[in-house]
Amino acid sequence: MSGPLHFEISQTSPSCQARVGRVTVPHGSFDTPAFMPVGTRGSVKGLLPDQVAATGSQILLNNAYHLMLRPGHELIASLGGVHAFMQWDGPILTDSGGYQAWSLADMSLLGEDGIVFKSIIDGSRVELTPERSMEVQNSLGADIIMAFDDCPPSVDASSRVRDQRPELAAAHDGQIGEDHHQRLVGAIDRTARWLERCVASHARRDEQALFGIVQGGPSEPLRRRSAEQVTAFDLPGYAIGGVAVGESTEVLHATVRMTAPMLPVDRPRYLMGVGYERDLVAAVRAGVDMFDCVLPTRNGRSGGIFTTTGRLQIRNARFREDQSVLELGCDCQACGGGFSRAYLRHLFVSGEMLGPILLSLHNIRHFQRLMVDIRRAIRDDAWSSLARAWPVLGIPVADAIGPVDSPDLTGL
Amino acid sequence: MSGPLHFEISQTSPSCQARVGRVTVPHGSFDTPAFMPVGTRGSVKGLLPDQVAATGSQILLNNAYHLMLRPGHELIASLGGVHAFMQWDGPILTDSGGYQAWSLADMSLLGEDGIVFKSIIDGSRVELTPERSMEVQNSLGADIIMAFDDCPPSVDASSRVRDQRPELAAAHDGQIGEDHHQRLVGAIDRTARWLERCVASHARRDEQALFGIVQGGPSEPLRRRSAEQVTAFDLPGYAIGGVAVGESTEVLHATVRMTAPMLPVDRPRYLMGVGYERDLVAAVRAGVDMFDCVLPTRNGRSGGIFTTTGRLQIRNARFREDQSVLELGCDCQACGGGFSRAYLRHLFVSGEMLGPILLSLHNIRHFQRLMVDIRRAIRDDAWSSLARAWPVLGIPVADAIGPVDSPDLTGL
Repeated sequence: MSGPLHFEISQTSPSCQARVGRVTVPHGSFDTPAFMPVGTRGSVKGLLPDQVAATGSQILLNNAYHLMLRPGHELIASLGGVHAFMQWDGPILTDSGGYQAWSLADMSLLGEDGIVFKSIIDGSRVELTPERSMEVQNSLGADIIMAFDDCPPSVDASSRVRDQRPELAAAHDGQIGEDHHQRLVGAIDRTARWLERCVASHARRDEQALFGIVQGGPSEPLRRRSAEQVTAFDLPGYAIGGVAVGESTEVLHATVRMTAPMLPVDRPRYLMGVGYERDLVAAVRAGVDMFDCVLPTRNGRSGGIFTTTGRLQIRNARFREDQSVLELGCDCQACGGGFSRAYLRHLFVSGEMLGPILLSLHNIRHFQRLMVDIRRAIRDDAWSSLARAWPVLGIPVADAIGPVDSPDLTGL
Repeated sequence: MSGPLHFEISQTSPSCQARVGRVTVPHGSFDTPAFMPVGTRGSVKGLLPDQVAATGSQILLNNAYHLMLRPGHELIASLGGVHAFMQWDGPILTDSGGYQAWSLADMSLLGEDGIVFKSIIDGSRVELTPERSMEVQNSLGADIIMAFDDCPPSVDASSRVRDQRPELAAAHDGQIGEDHHQRLVGAIDRTARWLERCVASHARRDEQALFGIVQGGPSEPLRRRSAEQVTAFDLPGYAIGGVAVGESTEVLHATVRMTAPMLPVDRPRYLMGVGYERDLVAAVRAGVDMFDCVLPTRNGRSGGIFTTTGRLQIRNARFREDQSVLELGCDCQACGGGFSRAYLRHLFVSGEMLGPILLSLHNIRHFQRLMVDIRRAIRDDAWSSLARAWPVLGIPVADAIGPVDSPDLTGL
């Protein structure tokens, strides 16, 4: 392997842009298209590394923002890096910290140099710049690190306003006002200038693969402009950023379909923070190779179950006496272990930790089983069998939730 | 095996009453002296059954009180009993529910028929009688079930007053006032009358071994009176109850030393709710075979670590950069897995579930390693080697906590 990343495409789909491959980085290999569970603070919540591996996960994502603030990237470096820290021997990807710095802080200021924000830990003033993000990610030592980019909200100038008024955002989807257009153009050009600084300051080029990130919102000309700027740097991989920030499913899919082909065909393409099952399949068919999302773990902790036919809520009273496992045919540690829906409901209703643990194991395995089936669909060009095995792919995301009866929240 | 329990003593200590043996019940065998982790609500908090088994635990305890109230013993019976419910194939013991009914309820009334209390779930009025406790435990289907007894507090008439004023209780230890003597005598005689009703109403005698419980506080004549009454029933095992309810270590040890020999030598002896390492060794040397205690899991969830040299608190700032595992030479999944104290501290300081999980695994394994060493000490009559390998045994319980510096609770 020359350089920190080798990408081998073993097969491409004759009917779309999808491809099956394998990425090799210093800590091992992972099959693509790949789904990365999120271990925000150096832990996939509630799961030991061997349990995460047992879900079929081959690469994890950690958040540089959180680890920088606590326990600190210097401490993690002194302990041998994030692999040794969390005892995960396989590949790890860290994000740049920029997105969280912007979205989580009480107050953040964006300038040409970077972002200044108040720490969520102690309120102190923290500055994150391209150089600082590289320093943090170099210290953490992940196999793949991300460029520090300017990720504007999809429509509004403020992602917080947008998060609070999704109905307004949806109404505007696909229509970009002049002010927002200027914001997007500014973000694209700044992202390119910041990428240059990231490339210049990245200190471990032989050990860590730096990915550039394409911005541009839902606009094809803006995406093209950003892709041209970012791919002007010869990097081991490229990401599509600025999606799943509030836009509709249609806009999300359209954005991915237009942007993926703008990226070099021989480099892994990573779609950041996406998403539901049908989003993954749409993106794979557009030529995307890597995904991360908190959906399986975040939903699992609150009782949400992913199944091939849609989502369920384990607290529902109708599961009180249900002897069946979460999903027949699933080989996760919850279903394979024989734990009934009735037992899992009891754990959630009683506030027992084991409930979130077992649902997280199931949900991550659900996404990894989907990736296995997607890779098979690509190899066999068998997309209709995939659709038959995964009825949820035919259901709009908002509707992919099973019949809900009155939740029984006794004792919660 | 005739009857639901077979107890084989393979070796006895020449220097004390300790014995090594093996208990066989319908769901398998366990080595004695045995330590049972507690799975209050049908789950050892945060741990999958295979992780519990990996700690060396061969038998678990579940609380009938909690399972009766939620999800209900009838539901568990309809799902195939508590083994199928929680997917633990090995031996299980349930307590009678009496102790929790008395100690946890806002208001409980004790009468000749039983205890009436307000449910902690919904405030409804619940009655627990010897017959009802047997019905509940028969429904749950544990291998070993406990008689419904009257367990008075160690000194005061009210365990709640006692819990709130431990300094008063300690001052009184070993001295029984006339009122409390009458309460103890009443409890003993009632326990005997209730045992008769338990024996009469126990519906699954071929599948579940019913243990009687000896009460009597710290008084030898009262313990003898209770032991004579309880052992008048030919039962597969007997327990020492009414200890670890607030008395000093000295009184606890003296009570066990006087009571254990009053129980038949060929039946397993179970000391309920005990305790710290030195309490276990003292009780084993007095002839006790079985223990349960929440200490390893409850302490683990709040950051307490058991080691052979005493207890530690993982949140302490001095562990911030500590690369060592919790205890060198420990083979638990936390130490064997290579997780550093620095990482575990980070998990606790960050509120990550994995912290309580890993400390629970370590602490349960700590107690199981102690049991392995205790069984070896009995076989080899090597009590001084045991003391050398476990320095904590020579330290008073209250002092068995390592040097504590100012806890760093940043962000908690």
